[in-house]
Amino acid sequence: MINETPKFAVVLSGCGVYDGSEIHEAVSLLLAIDEAGCDYQCFAPNTWQARTIDHFTGESTAVAGDADNRNVLAESARIARGNIQDLSEFNPHDFDAIILPGGFGAAMNFCDFGVKGPECDVNVEVEHALKESFNAKIVIGAMCIAPVVLARVLGKKGITVTVGSDKNIAAGIAKMGAKHKNCAVDEVCVDQKNLIVTVPAYMLAKSIKEVGRGARNLVDEILELVA
Amino acid sequence: MINETPKFAVVLSGCGVYDGSEIHEAVSLLLAIDEAGCDYQCFAPNTWQARTIDHFTGESTAVAGDADNRNVLAESARIARGNIQDLSEFNPHDFDAIILPGGFGAAMNFCDFGVKGPECDVNVEVEHALKESFNAKIVIGAMCIAPVVLARVLGKKGITVTVGSDKNIAAGIAKMGAKHKNCAVDEVCVDQKNLIVTVPAYMLAKSIKEVGRGARNLVDEILELVA
Repeated sequence: MINETPKFAVVLSGCGVYDGSEIHEAVSLLLAIDEAGCDYQCFAPNTWQARTIDHFTGESTAVAGDADNRNVLAESARIARGNIQDLSEFNPHDFDAIILPGGFGAAMNFCDFGVKGPECDVNVEVEHALKESFNAKIVIGAMCIAPVVLARVLGKKGITVTVGSDKNIAAGIAKMGAKHKNCAVDEVCVDQKNLIVTVPAYMLAKSIKEVGRGARNLVDEILELVA
Repeated sequence: MINETPKFAVVLSGCGVYDGSEIHEAVSLLLAIDEAGCDYQCFAPNTWQARTIDHFTGESTAVAGDADNRNVLAESARIARGNIQDLSEFNPHDFDAIILPGGFGAAMNFCDFGVKGPECDVNVEVEHALKESFNAKIVIGAMCIAPVVLARVLGKKGITVTVGSDKNIAAGIAKMGAKHKNCAVDEVCVDQKNLIVTVPAYMLAKSIKEVGRGARNLVDEILELVA
Protein backbone atom coordinates (compact mmCIF):
# COMPACT_ATOMS: atom_id res chain seq x y z
CA MET A 1 0.00 0.00 0.00
CA ILE A 2 1.36 3.43 -0.97
CA ASN A 3 -0.87 5.54 1.25
CA GLU A 4 -1.99 4.85 4.81
CA THR A 5 -5.50 5.63 3.63
CA PRO A 6 -5.69 3.93 0.21
CA LYS A 7 -6.05 6.54 -2.52
CA PHE A 8 -7.81 6.04 -5.83
CA ALA A 9 -7.42 8.03 -9.03
CA VAL A 10 -10.71 7.99 -10.96
CA VAL A 11 -10.35 8.94 -14.61
CA LEU A 12 -13.48 10.37 -16.24
CA SER A 13 -14.27 10.70 -19.95
CA GLY A 14 -17.06 13.30 -19.81
CA CYS A 15 -20.50 13.32 -18.19
CA GLY A 16 -23.23 11.14 -19.66
CA VAL A 17 -23.47 7.57 -20.94
CA TYR A 18 -23.69 8.38 -24.68
CA ASP A 19 -20.72 10.75 -25.02
CA GLY A 20 -18.84 10.60 -21.71
CA SER A 21 -18.56 8.67 -18.45
CA GLU A 22 -21.62 6.67 -17.43
CA ILE A 23 -22.80 8.76 -14.49
CA HIS A 24 -24.24 5.95 -12.32
CA GLU A 25 -21.01 3.97 -12.66
CA ALA A 26 -18.79 6.96 -11.86
CA VAL A 27 -20.85 8.07 -8.84
CA SER A 28 -21.36 4.51 -7.51
CA LEU A 29 -17.58 4.12 -7.68
CA LEU A 30 -16.88 7.37 -5.79
CA LEU A 31 -19.48 6.35 -3.19
CA ALA A 32 -17.98 2.87 -2.80
CA ILE A 33 -14.47 4.33 -2.38
CA ASP A 34 -15.64 6.82 0.26
CA GLU A 35 -17.76 4.23 2.08
CA ALA A 36 -14.71 1.92 2.24
CA GLY A 37 -12.87 4.69 4.13
CA CYS A 38 -10.56 5.52 1.20
CA ASP A 39 -9.77 8.76 -0.64
CA TYR A 40 -10.19 9.61 -4.30
CA GLN A 41 -9.07 12.24 -6.75
CA CYS A 42 -10.79 12.66 -10.11
CA PHE A 43 -8.86 13.25 -13.35
CA ALA A 44 -9.78 13.71 -16.99
CA PRO A 45 -7.85 14.35 -20.19
CA ASN A 46 -8.09 17.97 -21.37
CA THR A 47 -9.37 17.13 -24.85
CA TRP A 48 -12.49 17.50 -26.97
CA GLN A 49 -15.24 14.91 -26.99
CA ALA A 50 -15.52 12.84 -30.16
CA ARG A 51 -19.16 13.96 -30.25
CA THR A 52 -21.85 15.50 -28.09
CA ILE A 53 -25.17 13.67 -27.83
CA ASP A 54 -28.52 15.11 -26.70
CA HIS A 55 -29.40 12.45 -24.09
CA PHE A 56 -33.14 13.17 -24.40
CA THR A 57 -33.44 12.77 -28.18
CA GLY A 58 -30.39 10.51 -28.64
CA GLU A 59 -29.22 12.70 -31.53
CA SER A 60 -25.71 14.01 -32.14
CA THR A 61 -25.56 17.80 -31.70
CA ALA A 62 -21.84 18.32 -32.33
CA VAL A 63 -18.71 16.45 -33.38
CA ALA A 64 -15.00 17.13 -32.93
CA GLY A 65 -14.12 20.47 -34.50
CA ASP A 66 -17.58 22.06 -34.00
CA ALA A 67 -17.63 25.22 -31.88
CA ASP A 68 -20.43 23.81 -29.69
CA ASN A 69 -18.73 20.48 -29.04
CA ARG A 70 -17.83 19.86 -25.38
CA ASN A 71 -14.53 19.43 -23.55
CA VAL A 72 -13.89 16.17 -21.67
CA LEU A 73 -12.24 17.84 -18.64
CA ALA A 74 -14.94 20.52 -18.27
CA GLU A 75 -17.79 17.98 -18.53
CA SER A 76 -16.08 15.46 -16.23
CA ALA A 77 -15.79 18.27 -13.67
CA ARG A 78 -19.59 18.06 -13.27
CA ILE A 79 -19.31 14.57 -11.77
CA ALA A 80 -16.35 15.71 -9.62
CA ARG A 81 -18.12 18.88 -8.36
CA GLY A 82 -15.22 20.92 -9.78
CA ASN A 83 -12.59 18.99 -7.79
CA ILE A 84 -10.73 17.47 -10.74
CA GLN A 85 -7.24 17.59 -12.23
CA ASP A 86 -5.94 17.47 -15.77
CA LEU A 87 -4.82 13.88 -16.40
CA SER A 88 -1.41 15.22 -17.51
CA GLU A 89 -0.79 15.98 -13.81
CA PHE A 90 -1.43 12.39 -12.70
CA ASN A 91 1.48 10.69 -10.90
CA PRO A 92 0.91 6.98 -10.18
CA HIS A 93 3.30 7.13 -7.22
CA ASP A 94 0.69 9.19 -5.34
CA PHE A 95 -1.99 6.51 -5.71
CA ASP A 96 -2.77 2.90 -4.83
CA ALA A 97 -5.10 2.41 -7.77
CA ILE A 98 -6.39 4.07 -10.94
CA ILE A 99 -9.90 3.29 -12.21
CA LEU A 100 -11.72 4.06 -15.46
CA PRO A 101 -15.55 4.00 -15.25
CA GLY A 102 -17.44 3.11 -18.44
CA GLY A 103 -19.82 4.91 -20.76
CA PHE A 104 -19.31 5.60 -24.48
CA GLY A 105 -16.73 8.24 -23.50
CA ALA A 106 -14.35 5.38 -22.70
CA ALA A 107 -14.70 4.02 -26.26
CA MET A 108 -14.97 7.43 -28.00
CA ASN A 109 -12.84 9.89 -25.97
CA PHE A 110 -10.26 7.73 -24.14
CA CYS A 111 -9.79 5.85 -27.42
CA ASP A 112 -11.75 5.38 -30.65
CA PHE A 113 -12.55 1.68 -30.21
CA GLY A 114 -16.21 2.61 -30.80
CA VAL A 115 -15.29 3.61 -34.37
CA LYS A 116 -12.16 1.63 -35.29
CA GLY A 117 -12.41 -1.46 -33.06
CA PRO A 118 -9.15 -3.27 -32.18
CA GLU A 119 -7.08 -0.95 -34.42
CA CYS A 120 -8.11 2.02 -32.30
CA ASP A 121 -5.91 4.93 -31.27
CA VAL A 122 -5.69 5.90 -27.61
CA ASN A 123 -5.59 9.44 -26.19
CA VAL A 124 -1.94 10.22 -25.41
CA GLU A 125 -2.55 11.21 -21.76
CA VAL A 126 -4.68 8.13 -21.09
CA GLU A 127 -2.08 5.84 -22.66
CA HIS A 128 0.70 7.49 -20.65
CA ALA A 129 -1.25 7.27 -17.35
CA LEU A 130 -2.00 3.56 -17.88
CA LYS A 131 1.56 2.62 -18.88
CA GLU A 132 3.05 4.56 -15.97
CA SER A 133 0.53 2.97 -13.57
CA PHE A 134 1.42 -0.50 -14.86
CA ASN A 135 5.14 0.20 -14.45
CA ALA A 136 4.57 1.62 -10.95
CA LYS A 137 2.67 -1.58 -10.07
CA ILE A 138 -0.44 0.18 -8.78
CA VAL A 139 -3.80 -1.51 -9.35
CA ILE A 140 -5.58 -0.64 -12.60
CA GLY A 141 -9.37 -1.00 -12.65
CA ALA A 142 -12.03 -0.51 -15.31
CA MET A 143 -15.80 -0.82 -15.55
CA CYS A 144 -18.25 -1.65 -18.36
CA ILE A 145 -16.67 -0.98 -21.81
CA ALA A 146 -13.55 0.75 -20.40
CA PRO A 147 -11.52 -2.52 -20.26
CA VAL A 148 -11.06 -2.16 -24.05
CA VAL A 149 -8.74 0.79 -23.31
CA LEU A 150 -6.66 -1.41 -20.98
CA ALA A 151 -6.60 -4.14 -23.64
CA ARG A 152 -5.33 -1.71 -26.30
CA VAL A 153 -2.61 -0.18 -24.08
CA LEU A 154 -1.57 -3.24 -22.03
CA GLY A 155 -2.84 -6.22 -24.07
CA LYS A 156 0.67 -7.28 -25.06
CA LYS A 157 1.51 -7.71 -21.35
CA GLY A 158 -0.94 -10.62 -21.33
CA ILE A 159 -3.57 -9.01 -19.11
CA THR A 160 -7.01 -10.57 -18.51
CA VAL A 161 -10.15 -8.41 -18.41
CA THR A 162 -13.94 -8.71 -18.63
CA VAL A 163 -16.69 -6.74 -20.35
CA GLY A 164 -19.29 -9.28 -19.19
CA SER A 165 -20.20 -11.71 -21.98
CA ASP A 166 -20.36 -9.72 -25.25
CA LYS A 167 -18.78 -12.01 -27.87
CA ASN A 168 -17.89 -9.28 -30.39
CA ILE A 169 -16.14 -7.06 -27.88
CA ALA A 170 -14.46 -10.11 -26.32
CA ALA A 171 -13.12 -10.98 -29.79
CA GLY A 172 -11.86 -7.40 -30.19
CA ILE A 173 -10.12 -7.63 -26.82
CA ALA A 174 -8.44 -10.88 -27.91
CA LYS A 175 -7.25 -9.20 -31.14
CA MET A 176 -5.59 -6.51 -29.03
CA GLY A 177 -3.60 -9.24 -27.25
CA ALA A 178 -5.50 -9.43 -23.97
CA LYS A 179 -7.50 -12.36 -22.61
CA HIS A 180 -11.23 -11.99 -22.03
CA LYS A 181 -13.00 -13.79 -19.19
CA ASN A 182 -16.80 -14.02 -19.14
CA CYS A 183 -18.17 -12.67 -15.85
CA ALA A 184 -21.60 -12.25 -14.28
CA VAL A 185 -22.81 -8.74 -13.42
CA ASP A 186 -21.58 -8.74 -9.81
CA GLU A 187 -18.41 -10.75 -10.48
CA VAL A 188 -15.01 -9.05 -10.57
CA CYS A 189 -12.38 -10.25 -13.04
CA VAL A 190 -9.14 -10.18 -11.02
CA ASP A 191 -5.81 -10.50 -12.87
CA GLN A 192 -3.70 -10.95 -9.75
CA LYS A 193 -0.35 -11.08 -11.56
CA ASN A 194 -0.86 -7.85 -13.51
CA LEU A 195 -2.96 -6.08 -10.84
CA ILE A 196 -5.88 -5.52 -13.22
CA VAL A 197 -9.50 -5.61 -11.94
CA THR A 198 -12.57 -5.18 -14.15
CA VAL A 199 -16.37 -5.43 -13.70
CA PRO A 200 -19.18 -5.62 -16.31
CA ALA A 201 -21.37 -2.83 -14.76
CA TYR A 202 -23.90 -1.61 -17.37
CA MET A 203 -22.57 -4.07 -19.99
CA LEU A 204 -24.83 -6.47 -18.04
CA ALA A 205 -26.52 -4.55 -15.23
CA LYS A 206 -30.28 -4.16 -15.50
CA SER A 207 -30.54 -1.50 -12.81
CA ILE A 208 -28.44 0.93 -10.81
CA LYS A 209 -28.30 -1.31 -7.71
CA GLU A 210 -26.41 -3.93 -9.74
CA VAL A 211 -23.94 -1.23 -10.77
CA GLY A 212 -23.59 -0.17 -7.13
CA ARG A 213 -22.89 -3.74 -6.04
CA GLY A 214 -20.31 -4.18 -8.80
CA ALA A 215 -18.56 -0.94 -7.77
CA ARG A 216 -18.37 -2.08 -4.14
CA ASN A 217 -17.03 -5.49 -5.20
CA LEU A 218 -14.43 -3.77 -7.39
CA VAL A 219 -13.23 -1.58 -4.50
CA ASP A 220 -13.14 -4.60 -2.15
CA GLU A 221 -10.96 -6.58 -4.58
CA ILE A 222 -8.62 -3.62 -5.01
CA LEU A 223 -8.25 -3.30 -1.23
CA GLU A 224 -7.35 -7.01 -1.08
CA LEU A 225 -4.66 -6.46 -3.72
CA VAL A 226 -3.11 -3.41 -2.06
CA ALA A 227 -3.29 -4.76 1.52
CA MET B 1 -49.60 3.11 -0.86
CA ILE B 2 -50.60 3.70 -4.48
CA ASN B 3 -48.39 1.06 -6.08
CA GLU B 4 -47.65 -2.45 -4.84
CA THR B 5 -44.00 -1.61 -5.49
CA PRO B 6 -43.65 1.97 -4.24
CA LYS B 7 -42.89 4.30 -7.14
CA PHE B 8 -40.89 7.50 -6.91
CA ALA B 9 -40.90 10.43 -9.32
CA VAL B 10 -37.46 12.10 -9.27
CA VAL B 11 -37.46 15.62 -10.69
CA LEU B 12 -34.12 16.81 -12.06
CA SER B 13 -33.00 20.38 -12.80
CA GLY B 14 -30.05 19.71 -15.12
CA CYS B 15 -26.77 17.85 -14.67
CA GLY B 16 -24.09 19.41 -12.47
CA VAL B 17 -24.01 21.13 -9.09
CA TYR B 18 -23.43 24.70 -10.36
CA ASP B 19 -26.18 24.91 -12.99
CA GLY B 20 -28.32 21.81 -12.55
CA SER B 21 -29.01 18.87 -10.25
CA GLU B 22 -26.18 17.92 -7.90
CA ILE B 23 -25.11 14.64 -9.50
CA HIS B 24 -24.05 12.77 -6.32
CA GLU B 25 -27.39 13.60 -4.66
CA ALA B 26 -29.44 12.57 -7.69
CA VAL B 27 -27.55 9.29 -8.25
CA SER B 28 -27.41 8.41 -4.52
CA LEU B 29 -31.17 8.89 -4.46
CA LEU B 30 -31.80 6.65 -7.49
CA LEU B 31 -29.49 4.04 -5.94
CA ALA B 32 -31.28 4.22 -2.57
CA ILE B 33 -34.69 3.86 -4.24
CA ASP B 34 -33.57 0.83 -6.27
CA GLU B 35 -31.80 -0.77 -3.30
CA ALA B 36 -35.00 -0.40 -1.25
CA GLY B 37 -36.79 -2.50 -3.89
CA CYS B 38 -38.77 0.43 -5.28
CA ASP B 39 -39.17 1.87 -8.78
CA TYR B 40 -38.40 5.35 -10.06
CA GLN B 41 -39.14 7.50 -13.07
CA CYS B 42 -37.12 10.65 -13.76
CA PHE B 43 -38.73 13.89 -14.92
CA ALA B 44 -37.49 17.37 -15.76
CA PRO B 45 -39.10 20.58 -16.97
CA ASN B 46 -38.52 21.26 -20.67
CA THR B 47 -37.03 24.71 -20.20
CA TRP B 48 -33.72 26.54 -20.59
CA GLN B 49 -31.17 26.70 -17.81
CA ALA B 50 -30.78 30.10 -16.13
CA ARG B 51 -27.09 29.79 -16.96
CA THR B 52 -24.46 27.26 -17.98
CA ILE B 53 -21.31 26.99 -15.87
CA ASP B 54 -17.98 25.46 -16.87
CA HIS B 55 -17.51 23.17 -13.85
CA PHE B 56 -13.71 23.12 -14.30
CA THR B 57 -13.14 26.89 -14.36
CA GLY B 58 -16.28 27.87 -12.43
CA GLU B 59 -17.06 30.50 -15.07
CA SER B 60 -20.40 31.17 -16.72
CA THR B 61 -20.32 30.23 -20.42
CA ALA B 62 -23.93 31.06 -21.31
CA VAL B 63 -27.10 32.56 -19.86
CA ALA B 64 -30.78 32.28 -20.77
CA GLY B 65 -31.27 33.45 -24.35
CA ASP B 66 -27.78 32.51 -25.57
CA ALA B 67 -27.66 30.01 -28.42
CA ASP B 68 -25.18 27.82 -26.53
CA ASN B 69 -27.15 27.73 -23.27
CA ARG B 70 -28.38 24.28 -22.27
CA ASN B 71 -31.85 22.75 -21.87
CA VAL B 72 -32.86 21.37 -18.45
CA LEU B 73 -34.62 18.28 -19.85
CA ALA B 74 -31.78 17.37 -22.24
CA GLU B 75 -29.11 17.76 -19.53
CA SER B 76 -31.17 15.94 -16.89
CA ALA B 77 -31.47 13.05 -19.36
CA ARG B 78 -27.74 12.43 -18.80
CA ILE B 79 -28.38 11.42 -15.18
CA ALA B 80 -31.41 9.36 -16.27
CA ARG B 81 -29.54 7.56 -19.10
CA GLY B 82 -32.16 8.90 -21.52
CA ASN B 83 -35.06 7.39 -19.58
CA ILE B 84 -36.78 10.63 -18.61
CA GLN B 85 -40.11 12.33 -19.19
CA ASP B 86 -41.14 15.93 -19.64
CA LEU B 87 -42.46 17.11 -16.25
CA SER B 88 -45.67 18.28 -17.99
CA GLU B 89 -46.54 14.56 -18.33
CA PHE B 90 -46.24 13.90 -14.59
CA ASN B 91 -49.40 12.55 -12.91
CA PRO B 92 -49.17 12.30 -9.09
CA HIS B 93 -51.76 9.53 -9.06
CA ASP B 94 -49.18 7.20 -10.65
CA PHE B 95 -46.67 7.74 -7.83
CA ASP B 96 -46.23 7.30 -4.09
CA ALA B 97 -43.70 10.12 -3.80
CA ILE B 98 -42.03 12.92 -5.74
CA ILE B 99 -38.50 14.02 -4.84
CA LEU B 100 -36.37 17.01 -5.87
CA PRO B 101 -32.58 16.55 -5.48
CA GLY B 102 -30.52 19.69 -4.85
CA GLY B 103 -27.84 21.58 -6.73
CA PHE B 104 -27.99 25.18 -7.93
CA GLY B 105 -30.44 24.04 -10.61
CA ALA B 106 -33.10 23.81 -7.88
CA ALA B 107 -32.55 27.49 -6.98
CA MET B 108 -31.90 28.73 -10.56
CA ASN B 109 -34.00 26.55 -12.89
CA PHE B 110 -36.87 25.22 -10.74
CA CYS B 111 -37.21 28.73 -9.33
CA ASP B 112 -35.02 31.85 -9.13
CA PHE B 113 -34.54 31.86 -5.35
CA GLY B 114 -30.79 32.06 -6.04
CA VAL B 115 -31.33 35.51 -7.56
CA LYS B 116 -34.53 36.90 -5.97
CA GLY B 117 -34.69 35.10 -2.62
CA PRO B 118 -38.12 34.70 -0.98
CA GLU B 119 -39.82 36.76 -3.73
CA CYS B 120 -38.75 34.19 -6.31
CA ASP B 121 -40.81 32.94 -9.22
CA VAL B 122 -41.27 29.20 -9.74
CA ASN B 123 -41.23 27.34 -13.06
CA VAL B 124 -44.87 26.71 -14.03
CA GLU B 125 -44.49 22.94 -14.48
CA VAL B 126 -42.63 22.54 -11.18
CA GLU B 127 -45.27 24.57 -9.33
CA HIS B 128 -48.06 22.55 -10.94
CA ALA B 129 -46.40 19.21 -10.14
CA LEU B 130 -45.89 20.17 -6.47
CA LYS B 131 -49.42 21.53 -5.96
CA GLU B 132 -50.98 18.49 -7.62
CA SER B 133 -48.80 16.16 -5.54
CA PHE B 134 -49.82 17.96 -2.33
CA ASN B 135 -53.50 17.72 -3.29
CA ALA B 136 -53.12 14.04 -4.21
CA LYS B 137 -51.53 13.45 -0.76
CA ILE B 138 -48.42 11.73 -2.09
CA VAL B 139 -45.15 12.28 -0.22
CA ILE B 140 -43.04 15.24 -1.35
CA GLY B 141 -39.30 15.08 -0.71
CA ALA B 142 -36.41 17.46 -1.31
CA MET B 143 -32.64 17.47 -0.73
CA CYS B 144 -30.07 20.18 -0.05
CA ILE B 145 -31.30 23.61 -1.30
CA ALA B 146 -34.40 22.20 -3.08
CA PRO B 147 -36.67 22.65 0.01
CA VAL B 148 -36.80 26.38 -0.88
CA VAL B 149 -38.94 25.41 -3.87
CA LEU B 150 -41.36 23.56 -1.59
CA ALA B 151 -41.39 26.56 0.78
CA ARG B 152 -42.27 28.96 -2.07
CA VAL B 153 -45.05 26.75 -3.51
CA LEU B 154 -46.46 25.22 -0.31
CA GLY B 155 -45.24 27.54 2.48
CA LYS B 156 -48.74 28.89 3.11
CA LYS B 157 -49.89 25.35 3.93
CA GLY B 158 -47.66 25.53 7.01
CA ILE B 159 -45.12 22.95 5.92
CA THR B 160 -41.85 22.31 7.81
CA VAL B 161 -38.59 21.72 5.94
CA THR B 162 -34.83 21.69 6.52
CA VAL B 163 -31.82 22.93 4.58
CA GLY B 164 -29.51 21.96 7.44
CA SER B 165 -28.55 24.97 9.56
CA ASP B 166 -27.97 27.92 7.19
CA LYS B 167 -29.49 30.93 8.98
CA ASN B 168 -29.99 33.12 5.89
CA ILE B 169 -31.77 30.47 3.88
CA ALA B 170 -33.78 29.45 6.96
CA ALA B 171 -34.90 33.10 7.27
CA GLY B 172 -35.88 33.11 3.58
CA ILE B 173 -37.89 29.94 4.09
CA ALA B 174 -39.72 31.56 7.03
CA LYS B 175 -40.51 34.60 4.86
CA MET B 176 -42.14 32.29 2.34
CA GLY B 177 -44.45 31.04 5.10
CA ALA B 178 -42.84 27.69 5.86
CA LYS B 179 -41.17 26.57 9.08
CA HIS B 180 -37.48 25.70 9.11
CA LYS B 181 -36.07 23.01 11.38
CA ASN B 182 -32.31 22.72 11.92
CA CYS B 183 -31.13 19.19 11.14
CA ALA B 184 -27.81 17.33 11.18
CA VAL B 185 -26.43 15.93 7.95
CA ASP B 186 -27.95 12.45 8.30
CA GLU B 187 -31.17 13.60 9.95
CA VAL B 188 -34.44 13.70 7.99
CA CYS B 189 -36.95 16.48 8.64
CA VAL B 190 -40.32 14.71 8.56
CA ASP B 191 -43.50 16.81 8.36
CA GLN B 192 -45.88 13.94 9.03
CA LYS B 193 -49.06 15.98 8.66
CA ASN B 194 -48.18 17.44 5.28
CA LEU B 195 -46.18 14.43 4.04
CA ILE B 196 -43.05 16.49 3.41
CA VAL B 197 -39.57 14.99 3.95
CA THR B 198 -36.30 16.90 3.50
CA VAL B 199 -32.58 16.23 4.10
CA PRO B 200 -29.58 18.62 4.18
CA ALA B 201 -27.33 16.56 1.82
CA TYR B 202 -24.51 18.81 0.48
CA MET B 203 -25.80 21.81 2.46
CA LEU B 204 -23.89 20.04 5.27
CA ALA B 205 -22.30 16.89 3.86
CA LYS B 206 -18.51 16.83 3.77
CA SER B 207 -18.28 13.80 1.50
CA ILE B 208 -20.36 11.65 -0.82
CA LYS B 209 -20.91 8.90 1.77
CA GLU B 210 -22.82 11.38 3.95
CA VAL B 211 -24.99 12.21 0.95
CA GLY B 212 -25.56 8.50 0.34
CA ARG B 213 -26.59 7.95 3.96
CA GLY B 214 -28.97 10.92 3.82
CA ALA B 215 -30.55 9.61 0.62
CA ARG B 216 -31.13 6.17 2.19
CA ASN B 217 -32.61 7.77 5.31
CA LEU B 218 -34.89 9.89 3.13
CA VAL B 219 -36.16 6.84 1.23
CA ASP B 220 -36.66 4.91 4.50
CA GLU B 221 -38.77 7.73 5.97
CA ILE B 222 -40.86 7.93 2.81
CA LEU B 223 -41.50 4.19 2.94
CA GLU B 224 -42.68 4.59 6.56
CA LEU B 225 -45.09 7.33 5.46
CA VAL B 226 -46.57 5.39 2.54
CA ALA B 227 -46.76 2.02 4.33
